[in-house]
Amino acid sequence: MSSREKATWIAADWGTTNLRIWALDSIGQTIAHRSSDKGMGALAKQEFEPALIDLTDDLLTPEVKTPVIVCGMAGSRQGWAEAPYKTAPCTPPTLTDATQVAAQDPRLTVSILPGIKQIDPADVMRGEETQIAGFLSENPGYSGTLCLPGTHTKWVALESGRIERFRTCMTGETFALLSKQSVLRHGLSAGDLDAIAFREAVTTIFGSPQRLSADLFGIRAAGLVAGLSPEAARGRLSGLLIGSELAAVKDEFDLSHVALLGSDAIAKAYQSALDCLGYSATLLNAETITLCGLKLAYSSYSKVHS
Amino acid sequence: MSSREKATWIAADWGTTNLRIWALDSIGQTIAHRSSDKGMGALAKQEFEPALIDLTDDLLTPEVKTPVIVCGMAGSRQGWAEAPYKTAPCTPPTLTDATQVAAQDPRLTVSILPGIKQIDPADVMRGEETQIAGFLSENPGYSGTLCLPGTHTKWVALESGRIERFRTCMTGETFALLSKQSVLRHGLSAGDLDAIAFREAVTTIFGSPQRLSADLFGIRAAGLVAGLSPEAARGRLSGLLIGSELAAVKDEFDLSHVALLGSDAIAKAYQSALDCLGYSATLLNAETITLCGLKLAYSSYSKVHS
Repeated sequence: MSSREKATWIAADWGTTNLRIWALDSIGQTIAHRSSDKGMGALAKQEFEPALIDLTDDLLTPEVKTPVIVCGMAGSRQGWAEAPYKTAPCTPPTLTDATQVAAQDPRLTVSILPGIKQIDPADVMRGEETQIAGFLSENPGYSGTLCLPGTHTKWVALESGRIERFRTCMTGETFALLSKQSVLRHGLSAGDLDAIAFREAVTTIFGSPQRLSADLFGIRAAGLVAGLSPEAARGRLSGLLIGSELAAVKDEFDLSHVALLGSDAIAKAYQSALDCLGYSATLLNAETITLCGLKLAYSSYSKVHS
Repeated sequence: MSSREKATWIAADWGTTNLRIWALDSIGQTIAHRSSDKGMGALAKQEFEPALIDLTDDLLTPEVKTPVIVCGMAGSRQGWAEAPYKTAPCTPPTLTDATQVAAQDPRLTVSILPGIKQIDPADVMRGEETQIAGFLSENPGYSGTLCLPGTHTKWVALESGRIERFRTCMTGETFALLSKQSVLRHGLSAGDLDAIAFREAVTTIFGSPQRLSADLFGIRAAGLVAGLSPEAARGRLSGLLIGSELAAVKDEFDLSHVALLGSDAIAKAYQSALDCLGYSATLLNAETITLCGLKLAYSSYSKVHS
């Protein structure tokens, strides 16, 4: 790898399964965006720095310390260096909350942003706090419910730009396990999903959330004895799980208007579910939101490191 | 293999993952009990008969057709031969409901007992109907709730020995997937389970079943930020799932007294859960119950095949 232009600083989103970096110039423009599969889950402590160098070597200036601002699981206890959680209620972490990492390579000065914990009910996030910071940088002082859909969906109550409380639902992970590995897999389509079956399931389970355990196997049975199509089965499973999640969070979060950070199929499924329950949700482009949050952190770099 | 004594008939419990056979003499005593891992899931149609012969060859009398009575997934569409479901409400299937299989080996005459289906709500069983028959042979005319705990737990409402309705909950399979493969695995003990955490979770979720989706990830979070022990985490996960199941079935089945067919750890967990909710449950030895059901079916053999 070679690059004529060098980075003024580097933003890194370091999750469990992937490392994504952006190299920024002095006016905040992206001169390189790269990623690798060297996520936190695949690395021992001493492998983080080499993994970062692999991706950025040609972007670093010899004999200059280039700031690297990191968010995500790299800051967990099993990560590169532990960045102790901030405790909610709180504003998103800034650079003053970051943990400095002693890098071997003289061209690096690394700061890892902390995640946020909540004591009661117990909950944690690492990485999403930077997305929230990015969202707030575009919506300063926002009050309302923010939802970050994904494998582990986060629900966040924001009050004048402060994180009042949050909740994680592992619906995406549960869907993946049940649809790919349980007995239900035999009756499910590979990808296409019947929207009507989805909405019916959302409505039913939201009204009677106690039925979930009994209704799951019913998907398989309806395929065997009532001709439920694989697409409808997939829609029903997704609807049952997302509808249950909405029933779980509805007392804690105002669902009347939800800002949904994402525009992929999962985000659209949440929007559709909220819509058929009479709520409304706005999809927001989340592609650059992590970078926005990291930029916000970097904006105080000269102040913090002077 | 060789054996001096030959079987008068053979009972076979042919599930998805295992084949278990008993060879019986003329007065119903077991002369051999064997099993193999040649379950339905591992076999193509033409492999069933060889798998049976493998296990029984030395027990068969030359030039005599030995009756083989089969229950379980061998009778499914993907099995040896489809034994079409009986439809609930109904009494357990008998030999007159069985499907005859044309065996190649002249020493075999094979009957496969059907399972039971239910149209609304959609549900199915294959194998458990024979356990129910065995239970009823020891408890003739029983009325009340019978629970068959397992990977897919069956709840059965019996009325004077008739199956009025039933429900399958895939709680055991869900627990296995979440405890071994989801993010929760990081905080869970391998086997030991905190009984107090189990009972607390059962009580909480039974009273507020809509909380399930939010409380699952809370197990992991409580391990990270509130020092929840791995044993308590395992107890809480098990309690949340079984408590949710009880909330799901409580309107359809009388839980005030439940006959639990089983005496293993899973059956005991259901007993403990019912107990802490103020219900009562009796554990019944289920080891020989399938054989009892198959014997009951065989008892009419000479009448049916004369």
